[in-house]
Amino acid sequence: MKKPRIGVVLSGCGVYDGAEIHESVLTLLALDRAGAEAVCLAPNVAQAHVVNHLTGQVAEGETRNVLVEAARIARGAIHDLAGFDPSGLDALLLPGGFGAAKNLSTFAFEGAACTVNADVARVVRAVHAAGKPVGAICIAPVVLAQLLGTEKPSVTIGTDAGTAEAIEKMGGRHVACPVKETVVDHDRRLVTTPAYMLANSISEAAAGIEKLVSEVLAMAKAEVAAR
Amino acid sequence: MKKPRIGVVLSGCGVYDGAEIHESVLTLLALDRAGAEAVCLAPNVAQAHVVNHLTGQVAEGETRNVLVEAARIARGAIHDLAGFDPSGLDALLLPGGFGAAKNLSTFAFEGAACTVNADVARVVRAVHAAGKPVGAICIAPVVLAQLLGTEKPSVTIGTDAGTAEAIEKMGGRHVACPVKETVVDHDRRLVTTPAYMLANSISEAAAGIEKLVSEVLAMAKAEVAAR
Repeated sequence: MKKPRIGVVLSGCGVYDGAEIHESVLTLLALDRAGAEAVCLAPNVAQAHVVNHLTGQVAEGETRNVLVEAARIARGAIHDLAGFDPSGLDALLLPGGFGAAKNLSTFAFEGAACTVNADVARVVRAVHAAGKPVGAICIAPVVLAQLLGTEKPSVTIGTDAGTAEAIEKMGGRHVACPVKETVVDHDRRLVTTPAYMLANSISEAAAGIEKLVSEVLAMAKAEVAAR
Repeated sequence: MKKPRIGVVLSGCGVYDGAEIHESVLTLLALDRAGAEAVCLAPNVAQAHVVNHLTGQVAEGETRNVLVEAARIARGAIHDLAGFDPSGLDALLLPGGFGAAKNLSTFAFEGAACTVNADVARVVRAVHAAGKPVGAICIAPVVLAQLLGTEKPSVTIGTDAGTAEAIEKMGGRHVACPVKETVVDHDRRLVTTPAYMLANSISEAAAGIEKLVSEVLAMAKAEVAAR
């Protein structure tokens, strides 16, 4: 089998207004160690806002671009999601961070009534429709619940009651899950893990993410074998 | 032995104008997995400049603060180096990225004639003078060469001839080193590794960083035992 190519959708750079940095790097590390190629992707749109990560306050008047900031995590090797052809991908991964709920979707502001960025929606749907696995970490499973709700996907964001309720409202089935574990929806080829929705340390987040990446790659391999 | 407390000096958030994100996260992961507590630190100063990581170009007119950006990697848990008392630390680590050569020091602009941020200098010197180990990754060993040059410290930045020459000019001894290895100066309790000065993948960087963290922690333990 050729080196699997796995899309990684980043939503900026920083837990409070973008992609959670540890989760993103741990995802890239797990992929590389497993011999897979990470293809970093991000929407070329303005961030919902900029948060000063020292104070936790919104930096009024400041603007940043999701793709440009995500390029920091990707060390410059990143593609604009607009016009990106996902047919060459073997799977897709969405790390968490508030960026998934603020930039990839409007979940942080609108809950179950949220919308998803059109390019994110297009690429997630295309990979999913091709029978390829999609993994989502931390809060990012809300994007899957919104896009694939009619299929009643089983996902986890850990144990947060309010978020779990919103996932059910969007059509998903929420399954409570400890930090080092994953929830696997075999029929719909979805894998999710709570990471920093529950993690008290980077090692805890790493354990769940490594498990998720390993399961997604196994599904991708099975999918290739079945073609 | 109580949980060792290891200072991690961050220089922003992004390889081209701050701390190399992968190296920083891999350092935090290795510390946590080894049962050590990471104490993130950064100088509260303006970045030398802001680089758009998508284009590689300087973002003219944009300004960012090193401490505020480094807080993205630290998820908010970070201390201003100014006034920070290093006496409670058991060791100090400096991840790389251009921030080490642009924000912690002026090496990127002035080479061997560079200066080092006063608080960075104070904390590195205090930890070193107390007989505790200091580890530096990627380009960050130039900071050690500048501060400790009179002691003729042995360090590595990999194999780059120009940087190696500048290190020698500052008083250091440069030792060529492959990416997954470290250079250990036992007498001066310094450990260095090339990481992204040479790494072609995140796994390669991780191998050297894990080795460095393990060696620094072993030295810290020995130092505590000898007190």
